[in-house]
Amino acid sequence: MLTQLETAMDTMIRTFHRYSSKEGDRFKLSKGELKLLLQQELTEFLSCQKDPQLVDKIMQDLDANKDNRVDFNGFVVMVAALTVACNDYFVELKEKGK
Amino acid sequence: MLTQLETAMDTMIRTFHRYSSKEGDRFKLSKGELKLLLQQELTEFLSCQKDPQLVDKIMQDLDANKDNRVDFNGFVVMVAALTVACNDYFVELKEKGK
Repeated sequence: MLTQLETAMDTMIRTFHRYSSKEGDRFKLSKGELKLLLQQELTEFLSCQKDPQLVDKIMQDLDANKDNRVDFNGFVVMVAALTVACNDYFVELKEKGK
Repeated sequence: MLTQLETAMDTMIRTFHRYSSKEGDRFKLSKGELKLLLQQELTEFLSCQKDPQLVDKIMQDLDANKDNRVDFNGFVVMVAALTVACNDYFVELKEKGK
C-alpha cells in the first residue's frame, strides 16, 4: 500500500513512460511526445502560457546531451521546477493571509 | 480539475507543509519533522534502510544554508532523486524483460 507521496512518485514515472513509449526511444521523450505530455498533463500550466516557442525552449533546457530527446532525469527536473514555482505562489498567498 | 501529474505536484506541496507547519518555522522542516515525514510518507523507502544515521545524512545533504532546516527546494530535490532511483530500477526490470 503506497502513501500519497509514494503514489505521487509513481505517477511521475508512469506519466513519463506513457508518453516516452509512443515512438522512437521508449525511455526518452521526443519533441512531439514532450509537447503532447505538456498539453495533456500540464493543462493548467500551459493554459496561461502564450509563447509559441515554449515547447522548443523547454526541450532546449532539458535536453542535456543535445540529442533532441528528454530523459527521465530531465523530466523530473522540469516537474520539480514547476512544483517549486507553484509552492512559491502558495507561500506568498499564505504570507499575505497571515 | 487537475490531471494526475498536477495532482502529484499538489501532493508534494501539501505533504511538505503538513509536516513543516508542526513546529518552529512553518515553511521549513526541522530534523524532527523531516524524520516524521520520512517515516510516515516514505515507508517503503525507509523499510530497506538500516542506517541509524540516515536522517542526519539526508538533513546534511539537503540543508543548503546549514541552518538545520530543509526548505521546500531541498525537499523536492530529495523526492526527485528518489524518483529517479525508482525509475532506474523500473527501467532495469523492463530491459531484462525485453
